[in-house]
Amino acid sequence: MPENPRRTLKLGAVLLGVGGPGQHHTWLDPQIPADASVDVRWYIARAQEAEAARFDHVFIVDSQYITPDSPHHYLSRLEPLTLLSAIAVHTEHIGLVATLTTSYSEPFDVARRLASLDHISGGRAGWNVVTSGDQGTAGNYSRDAHYDYATRYGRALEHVRVAQGLWDSYEPGALPRDREAGVFLDRSKLHALNHVGEHFRVAGPLNIERTPQGQPVIFQAGDSEEGRDLGAAVADAIFTHAANLEQAVAFRTELRERAAAKGRDPRHVLIVPGIHPIIGDTDEEAIARQAAVLGAKSFDKALAELGRPFGWHDFAQYDLDAPFPDVPSGESFRTQAEAVKRLAAEKGWTLRQVVEHQLAQGWSPFVGSPLTVADEIQRWFEAGGFDGINITVNSPADFARFTDQVLPILRERGVVRSEYESSTLRGNLGLPVPENRHTAALVP
Amino acid sequence: MPENPRRTLKLGAVLLGVGGPGQHHTWLDPQIPADASVDVRWYIARAQEAEAARFDHVFIVDSQYITPDSPHHYLSRLEPLTLLSAIAVHTEHIGLVATLTTSYSEPFDVARRLASLDHISGGRAGWNVVTSGDQGTAGNYSRDAHYDYATRYGRALEHVRVAQGLWDSYEPGALPRDREAGVFLDRSKLHALNHVGEHFRVAGPLNIERTPQGQPVIFQAGDSEEGRDLGAAVADAIFTHAANLEQAVAFRTELRERAAAKGRDPRHVLIVPGIHPIIGDTDEEAIARQAAVLGAKSFDKALAELGRPFGWHDFAQYDLDAPFPDVPSGESFRTQAEAVKRLAAEKGWTLRQVVEHQLAQGWSPFVGSPLTVADEIQRWFEAGGFDGINITVNSPADFARFTDQVLPILRERGVVRSEYESSTLRGNLGLPVPENRHTAALVP
Repeated sequence: MPENPRRTLKLGAVLLGVGGPGQHHTWLDPQIPADASVDVRWYIARAQEAEAARFDHVFIVDSQYITPDSPHHYLSRLEPLTLLSAIAVHTEHIGLVATLTTSYSEPFDVARRLASLDHISGGRAGWNVVTSGDQGTAGNYSRDAHYDYATRYGRALEHVRVAQGLWDSYEPGALPRDREAGVFLDRSKLHALNHVGEHFRVAGPLNIERTPQGQPVIFQAGDSEEGRDLGAAVADAIFTHAANLEQAVAFRTELRERAAAKGRDPRHVLIVPGIHPIIGDTDEEAIARQAAVLGAKSFDKALAELGRPFGWHDFAQYDLDAPFPDVPSGESFRTQAEAVKRLAAEKGWTLRQVVEHQLAQGWSPFVGSPLTVADEIQRWFEAGGFDGINITVNSPADFARFTDQVLPILRERGVVRSEYESSTLRGNLGLPVPENRHTAALVP
Repeated sequence: MPENPRRTLKLGAVLLGVGGPGQHHTWLDPQIPADASVDVRWYIARAQEAEAARFDHVFIVDSQYITPDSPHHYLSRLEPLTLLSAIAVHTEHIGLVATLTTSYSEPFDVARRLASLDHISGGRAGWNVVTSGDQGTAGNYSRDAHYDYATRYGRALEHVRVAQGLWDSYEPGALPRDREAGVFLDRSKLHALNHVGEHFRVAGPLNIERTPQGQPVIFQAGDSEEGRDLGAAVADAIFTHAANLEQAVAFRTELRERAAAKGRDPRHVLIVPGIHPIIGDTDEEAIARQAAVLGAKSFDKALAELGRPFGWHDFAQYDLDAPFPDVPSGESFRTQAEAVKRLAAEKGWTLRQVVEHQLAQGWSPFVGSPLTVADEIQRWFEAGGFDGINITVNSPADFARFTDQVLPILRERGVVRSEYESSTLRGNLGLPVPENRHTAALVP
């Protein structure tokens, strides 16, 4: 690898069937098994397709609370790490990113399972750090009440720090396994953590050795003040939503500055928004396709979904043509609720206008012919809108349109690379291996 | 399958490298990669060998606390469910049993991960329910003190009951996924649990549908009064140690009676002791091989290990030839400590005699030529000593001796079956699929 390799666009794929944004109705698609969400063979095949297209990683979303009214793709799905371990042994290069909440898990268990995936995959594990947004999750974990917002983010930061500390339990070379000398362990290179914090007390050491990546790659999403601060503190890569290029550049600039202010190298904080490309043979065909997809979503469904960031408040009780009602934000997805209220107040919108805006929000900035979509991705990338993209699509055919028609253009232009450059996810993302804290301390 | 199939011996294998009883020194064996404990390819190959020999299941042991003095095979190993998921997609028939503690886990998470493995494997998941024996585990899970014995077992029983309740969240047919009718979920067949107990409050429902086995198979080990009671209450199969046939028959008789007293069919509680067969071309060669293996274990090491059930008490401080010292039992492995003290008192043994007895305890009742070992296994099986055996060996060559030389004799005699009889672990073990509690309630 050259010392200053040309910066290339990183590529992730939200695995179809698990349910990313825009995947709510995939079970109706005859191209997709209706029970894809629990079909490991389906996921393995999708990951292999992404690997054949030289994607850096696949990504599994998650949640841990359902009601009969939950979206279809929440109702029954495989647990992310169990799923990714099965994918790991049927792929060779692609990164494997699992969403795991810090709100209802223990850092020792999470660190251990991710380290296992990193060993099993030969250095391809990633952790998408989230806090649980659904208040109902508390009820599945023996708690009377969900954590408040500040506690959730405080717990998340401490959780990641503890996991990182546990991943350093074994220095490189701590297990010589020298049969002739009869030495399995070099005791001087095994370290307890003895962490005592506000949310966790964890003695360690972790019962698994240093992994091929040194530490699994940390992904993070969350757009609130607390979420941005957490990402700037610990994330190697940050997921976000990008409605337009100006917003994307502003977000990336801010996050890089926040990371620098924390003493980090901003080149090692990749901004990777989710994008939903809609590709047709011509721009017109793509626009018509998007209209068909969005047209399938009803006003009533959008009205019901509006309630989510307001604690599943029922907005159907109000006059659609009266000013947007004064409803308190919920504890979960608070940032979304506040953005809706701010917009409604600024524009003086009625409830109907807010819902219509929400419907239109589903429209993607990446719609058109393969050339149009490739041009737009390149423009955003070169303008500093993102370091990579995380693709969500609605069908294998849509994914194939992107890999077979858009990617060759970007590859030809050198925007994306043609081959994997490393055997690890960290290597392919151009991220350094974190030095073990116990050996780092020895360096003058 | 005939209505009353002939009872056949069930076969399990402790996967070599993870470290079962007798596997402490395997890293020194040049036949075994020194880092086998984190090598997924090693485990997959071993599981495939066991599948080729028509074993019912492979079994992964576990613990979550290490010190520099821990046995080698504890120091660095893969987390059981992550490992078994990788094995699942490289095997087709063999059952996959994961040891998971109830002491430091949440039933919602455990139920979900096991259900995922059951879907991924097409109905081959098993859960070896344990309580954490090592007090130090508390320090990795933000607790000041380890649970006391009664609390550990109370928590274990409630944990399993909650997991079983969550596995019944979706009745059969709850997800019709009828595209033409547009019906994904039949809401009348999705059930919350709303469990409120002493140790857990879990609302449910679980976010994964009914699994191929209805419920993963429950294994359990633990020889104390509390352990036996837990096994009789919830286990489909019980691991144990069998020093001689009389003990084995007494244990099996007692456990079946306990299960019957709880209203269970004792035929659905399989007793499956771990056995360590040592096979030679002749009986003499096998006995010599055992002496060589046990001779490698030093008196000093046995003296140190004696301390474990006494809270890692240091017995080296005492006169070896004085009567066995009066040391209180530890909180962990209390039953072991009490058995040692009882034996020492009954026999009037010195500390040296107790340690020598512990060393001799390692001797297996299944040592000899292939014919001798096959005869002895058949004799125990037919006398009601066990329903199956869980094989631990020290090398792939030892495993091959058992599968290639002993199993054909047992197969010829009809003691073990020649082919898998079912696509699920439950089916191969001859265990019924538990009826979903919500449909069972409808039956008059």
